[in-house]
Amino acid sequence: MTNNRISNLFQIKLPIIQGGMIWCAGWELVSAVSNAGGLGLLGAGSMYPEILREHIQKTKKATARPFGVNVPLLYPETEKLMQIIVEEGVKIVFTSAGNPKTWTSHLQEKGIKVVHVVSNTKFAEKADLAGVDAIVAEGFEAGGHNGREETTTLELIPLVRRVTAKPLIAAGGIATGRQMFAAMILGADAVQMGSVFVASDESSAHKNFKDEVIKAKEGSTSLSLKQLTPVRLIRNQFALEIENAELAGATKEQLAQLLGHRRAKLGMFEGDINQGELEIGQVAALIDKIKPVRNIIDDIMLEYRVTKEQTSHMKFDF
Amino acid sequence: MTNNRISNLFQIKLPIIQGGMIWCAGWELVSAVSNAGGLGLLGAGSMYPEILREHIQKTKKATARPFGVNVPLLYPETEKLMQIIVEEGVKIVFTSAGNPKTWTSHLQEKGIKVVHVVSNTKFAEKADLAGVDAIVAEGFEAGGHNGREETTTLELIPLVRRVTAKPLIAAGGIATGRQMFAAMILGADAVQMGSVFVASDESSAHKNFKDEVIKAKEGSTSLSLKQLTPVRLIRNQFALEIENAELAGATKEQLAQLLGHRRAKLGMFEGDINQGELEIGQVAALIDKIKPVRNIIDDIMLEYRVTKEQTSHMKFDF
Repeated sequence: MTNNRISNLFQIKLPIIQGGMIWCAGWELVSAVSNAGGLGLLGAGSMYPEILREHIQKTKKATARPFGVNVPLLYPETEKLMQIIVEEGVKIVFTSAGNPKTWTSHLQEKGIKVVHVVSNTKFAEKADLAGVDAIVAEGFEAGGHNGREETTTLELIPLVRRVTAKPLIAAGGIATGRQMFAAMILGADAVQMGSVFVASDESSAHKNFKDEVIKAKEGSTSLSLKQLTPVRLIRNQFALEIENAELAGATKEQLAQLLGHRRAKLGMFEGDINQGELEIGQVAALIDKIKPVRNIIDDIMLEYRVTKEQTSHMKFDF
Repeated sequence: MTNNRISNLFQIKLPIIQGGMIWCAGWELVSAVSNAGGLGLLGAGSMYPEILREHIQKTKKATARPFGVNVPLLYPETEKLMQIIVEEGVKIVFTSAGNPKTWTSHLQEKGIKVVHVVSNTKFAEKADLAGVDAIVAEGFEAGGHNGREETTTLELIPLVRRVTAKPLIAAGGIATGRQMFAAMILGADAVQMGSVFVASDESSAHKNFKDEVIKAKEGSTSLSLKQLTPVRLIRNQFALEIENAELAGATKEQLAQLLGHRRAKLGMFEGDINQGELEIGQVAALIDKIKPVRNIIDDIMLEYRVTKEQTSHMKFDF
């Protein structure tokens, strides 16, 4: 056992959370992460309620270790998802994109640990007041939905650390052991990583999408659709169409029409890399290989430990 | 003496560089930073050649320690500036916003150490090839002119570290000891800070501008004028006018007209906080007080040392 508050809270070996990403985080990824010593989270945001039940049951069969479910609170049938989570005995829920007061105490009464995801201090304070067990602070670098203030992880972690004493998980832009250590130096107790697990053997992302993640370089992603809900996407054909429409002064309605529906599934799950939405973080530029989850986590921890060791080097002393 | 490559290169005590910011970094700020053990840089970008000469001479009188000059290579009279720098015996030059090949070897032949500022790996490689003595990698968080890829410091430092073995200075989003330590964990040898020195007693920024920096919160700055040259500004009345014009589909020509001339001086030096350009980093949200340079550096180093000490805490061990 360590003295790390997040490891203790979830009874996990390593303070590494795998983000519960839509279309990517099914039972195979989640159980692989939990079996490797981290915390896997099912991405309920892209699952019908009965599909979530199936994934929970499969995860329980595939790992004896703790795991959880991420529920975006803008999901239309949140109530049904929560009912299934309680029925199936899930012990950890991460909520995002909504009011942390709505579900926190209800879930905690059922013995569930509740964590809320925020992108600014205002919502960190709200989550703290709602009594969550921990907070994820997610910076501008992150893939998918993202805050309007564009606050990067390097700024957000110290800012959130100022307003809450809760256990804090840094997210956004983290895929390596050095970045993990840096995030903890900034004040986080643990990290949540998404993009690097999209590019794993076990993620349910379409192979075409995984290949795009590997190919991504600096500037390959951008925060798109800021007038609707900001979302970080690979700048593929669809994203460039949005950019051009924005430059031409498109209205919100025109952008919503251009966006249409089901583009996230189309891109990430069905592999249409031109017309789909490909949600991934800026850190994709540092991800060069699709690997098994076990190797991803081993590599992160090796770099983490070597880096920590190196801080005794004289370079750091003055 | 330490084993830090940047401290050794510049013969300074602390690997803290003060960015050579236009309208803010005159002889008083520069000599104060150098006297406190860091490296002060005059911001030549807002100085006529003979004004630069005057500031160099005053700096030499005010400090016996090393200092340098920052020269944006898009400056119309770069040649004159460089001539004065050589004549006055300045030993350190930081160049930015241009081709690192143009001046590096010429200055080095005169015994000057040359550092180039980049915001992506492509220019880091160019700077390396040009034979610079060190590289500044500046992330999306930084105030003022900024890269088009929007790569944050958390991503940029590991990315640049991969392509060059040169001494590396992290910039963008750094104002505290924790952030400094995190940047060094990511692979930097030292840090360059701008915003926190704008908010010093010794900076030549107008008091009104300093007050706006202190007041800034999350979301108070944004990367503006992306269609022209991206620049991070406080979102004041002028910046919001630009945002609205962009939303309405303004052309580059219309934006350039709206921008006009001399707005940086108007805002930062003359104190028109509504109609001027106020260039400052996202980290302004973490800066709460105008302080003397000596206190700023003492506070950073105290937090740095305490944080470094804390890494032996069990929270970090697993």
